[in-house]
Amino acid sequence: MPPKPFPQLSPHQENDLIINTQQWALSNGLVMYPPNFELFQVNVAPITLFPTPILKSSFEQAIKVQTLYNELYINLITKRKEWLIDILKNLAEFDPDFSGKLFDIYQKSIADGVLQPLSLGIFRSDYMVDSSAQQIKQIEFNTVSVSFGGLSTKIGQLQSFLNSSGFYDDKYNFKYYGNDELPISTSVSDIAQGLADGNFYYNGEVENTDTIVLFVVQPNERNCFDQRIIEYELLRKHGIRSFRVTLEDVDEVITNNNGKLYVKSTMDEISVVYYRSGYGPGDYDSDPQKTWNARLFLEKSHAIKCPSILTQLSGSKKIQQLLTDETVIKQILPNIANDELQSLLSTFVRILPFDDTQQGQEAAKLAFQEPEKFVLKPQREGGGNNIYKSDIPEFLNKISKKDWGAYILMELINPQTFQNKILRNGQVYHENIVSELGVFGTIVFDEQTGAIKCNKNAGWLLRSKFETSDEGGVAAGFGCVDNVYLY
Amino acid sequence: MPPKPFPQLSPHQENDLIINTQQWALSNGLVMYPPNFELFQVNVAPITLFPTPILKSSFEQAIKVQTLYNELYINLITKRKEWLIDILKNLAEFDPDFSGKLFDIYQKSIADGVLQPLSLGIFRSDYMVDSSAQQIKQIEFNTVSVSFGGLSTKIGQLQSFLNSSGFYDDKYNFKYYGNDELPISTSVSDIAQGLADGNFYYNGEVENTDTIVLFVVQPNERNCFDQRIIEYELLRKHGIRSFRVTLEDVDEVITNNNGKLYVKSTMDEISVVYYRSGYGPGDYDSDPQKTWNARLFLEKSHAIKCPSILTQLSGSKKIQQLLTDETVIKQILPNIANDELQSLLSTFVRILPFDDTQQGQEAAKLAFQEPEKFVLKPQREGGGNNIYKSDIPEFLNKISKKDWGAYILMELINPQTFQNKILRNGQVYHENIVSELGVFGTIVFDEQTGAIKCNKNAGWLLRSKFETSDEGGVAAGFGCVDNVYLY
Repeated sequence: MPPKPFPQLSPHQENDLIINTQQWALSNGLVMYPPNFELFQVNVAPITLFPTPILKSSFEQAIKVQTLYNELYINLITKRKEWLIDILKNLAEFDPDFSGKLFDIYQKSIADGVLQPLSLGIFRSDYMVDSSAQQIKQIEFNTVSVSFGGLSTKIGQLQSFLNSSGFYDDKYNFKYYGNDELPISTSVSDIAQGLADGNFYYNGEVENTDTIVLFVVQPNERNCFDQRIIEYELLRKHGIRSFRVTLEDVDEVITNNNGKLYVKSTMDEISVVYYRSGYGPGDYDSDPQKTWNARLFLEKSHAIKCPSILTQLSGSKKIQQLLTDETVIKQILPNIANDELQSLLSTFVRILPFDDTQQGQEAAKLAFQEPEKFVLKPQREGGGNNIYKSDIPEFLNKISKKDWGAYILMELINPQTFQNKILRNGQVYHENIVSELGVFGTIVFDEQTGAIKCNKNAGWLLRSKFETSDEGGVAAGFGCVDNVYLY
Repeated sequence: MPPKPFPQLSPHQENDLIINTQQWALSNGLVMYPPNFELFQVNVAPITLFPTPILKSSFEQAIKVQTLYNELYINLITKRKEWLIDILKNLAEFDPDFSGKLFDIYQKSIADGVLQPLSLGIFRSDYMVDSSAQQIKQIEFNTVSVSFGGLSTKIGQLQSFLNSSGFYDDKYNFKYYGNDELPISTSVSDIAQGLADGNFYYNGEVENTDTIVLFVVQPNERNCFDQRIIEYELLRKHGIRSFRVTLEDVDEVITNNNGKLYVKSTMDEISVVYYRSGYGPGDYDSDPQKTWNARLFLEKSHAIKCPSILTQLSGSKKIQQLLTDETVIKQILPNIANDELQSLLSTFVRILPFDDTQQGQEAAKLAFQEPEKFVLKPQREGGGNNIYKSDIPEFLNKISKKDWGAYILMELINPQTFQNKILRNGQVYHENIVSELGVFGTIVFDEQTGAIKCNKNAGWLLRSKFETSDEGGVAAGFGCVDNVYLY
């Protein structure tokens, strides 16, 4: 069955919907600071007016494979560590300024022994639904600073409110969507639970509200409410306090006492260092010496890192490319059931390296023969834009052949498009949108022994953007927070 | 025991407190539209940084007498109706443009019989603590459109969050206030419950989520989030939807079918007409014919009014003056216990009329001999400012003696002052403040038989303003939302 159409509202009804959407959002924290903001004023976050259809089976598959993905990445780190480290050494060559520096910190942090073998992952696997295959395909697996878990629950609550109030119905008086069709992401409580799990294992499997979670954040974070929602939930439900610090301020504000981290002013002991910054080179640029030293300082401590350097680096595109190989998957997850394996494999698109393997030769051929099917992505983190389709041959010709290895060639997904409406700063934009489904997961594991303490699903996020914009990113103003309508 | 001092924070700590205060407020709907607003952007509501001390015994007395006050006003309306109507006729003479028009609507509404004998009151009794008597003294009893029940719960939650997080402590690491010292107002859930009670009795004592509550609101209401919070709670907890309309739009949007009110577009039946507008002459000025007709149209219907015209008019200053008489109280509440009576009487200040009674002669004398002890208030609603202290004799001399009857003379309260801090638009103001404690109550009653269906407390509000400003009013920018610290 095709999805039911978007609600057909009169201009007057749509205006009612917009007022009610905006006031609910402002009353319930579905907000974001505008550019150049004052601390006392916020805007409604960019959102869609309606939920966007996604096949129920696709959604459920994405939810179902999440703990497998969690385990895959963790086993890669813990059980195939030597192999991973070889890859990362190679990656460091192509990306010395960022991946290289992170790898360097990893090496320094273990030089005198490891103080904290436990590690916390809060991951998000991003997918699009390929329109011809009607199948989720993975865009990337994010291992650091995954965002929008806070606002995702909020937009689910908002759309549920609008639906219950009849605003999606042109008669206002019945629910346009069934309750089952509009699920609300549990990401707020689940991500808070993930942090509480980290706190629990830090304290020797004891609930302890004397230790706190350190949120490492960017200065002047416009999307801070997405993070605050998690902080408030962590305090409300678990009684665990949090403390926010920028990488720039770590040196001044945090101290290390016998390997343990404390907030200087309060001497609160830090159980978990949760990064909502530090994921791209830009986060270190303001004062590179200070910020990189801060990262090393935190990494070397007894606190549980979310993520550790190794976990962060395992989210690189090169790893994603290598993990598209069935043989590799079987090695890393030897006990995987066949249906699970097939489910995992079906989420992959073709990703090829430019190296001297057979795959590399294939990449060099396809990039010129069928560029429309591909996107060229730099292995380097946060560096420049992706190269799309027909721009690929010209680009490759322009650069030296020895630099091709700095890129991977990734099969493009042809996502379903929908004529949803985007609401931004009171304006409604009615264009084709494409949506990315992100599924959150949390995992506590021992980086030394490979023991997995807990491995959980943690809700989801739907992010949408105009079909015409190749790059997403809600905070950057190109996309918006959405929610699923399951059909 | 005196209250403990306000938290003594370093400039750095106060800055942390301010950031955390503002971000909690923006993330949790403790917000207000700024002047000339866009619908997608809000500011933190004006609030105090710290809770303000109030004697626990004073607070408890105010809570305790609320249901007595509810009953007093209801019995006045139902059991002393003829007397009340005589007073209101007289009041109409002094205030023909507003009280007179309301009274006229009352008469028209009953001319063809009463469709709905049941009435809902959502009241707020406002007090100050007199500094010499250490006793609450009533400023006024509000019977229509009482506000800040929504934001009051929010600031309680905010200050509780700040306290739990250690932000009030100069070491950040313990609760500066005990949990018992910082109660959170239950006004959100209690006022929503009051509306749900109205819906319940409208439907013959049956819970019915097919009928809705009509919120009659001002156009471009800056404080709409205070109302929205109640609407969301009403839906969340009781499954009862609401619909917002301005007096100007009633004619276009609402219809009467056999006496019952319906929203035209949805044919949702309206159980309760809840006024958050219509309480002052200004609310009718935009298009007097339309707005006054709307009021009559709603009053004549089968819906339960919150409040009915009679209930609204019983909140006038003239009634408050008459109710300061012990004999009158005993007549209206014949079964009142002596300790209850004493408790009620102790909340009164002296209020005198300018009429030909002995009290009137006393007023004329005191106004000239001891003006510093009094404020002169017009009986007219929403008309001009109060006249304070030494300005009174000059004012009375200026106007014709036959117009004196348009005023009452009210003993001034000498309120306690505290050096709290007010946060408005990111700026901190550190001045002496005075605070007004408002106690909410809800009551469903039969205006014909006098039967009281339910009579409940409904939380509280603390509002503070600079000592230097005589007139309060948070939305107008003169005051701010506060919460109690009980000592």
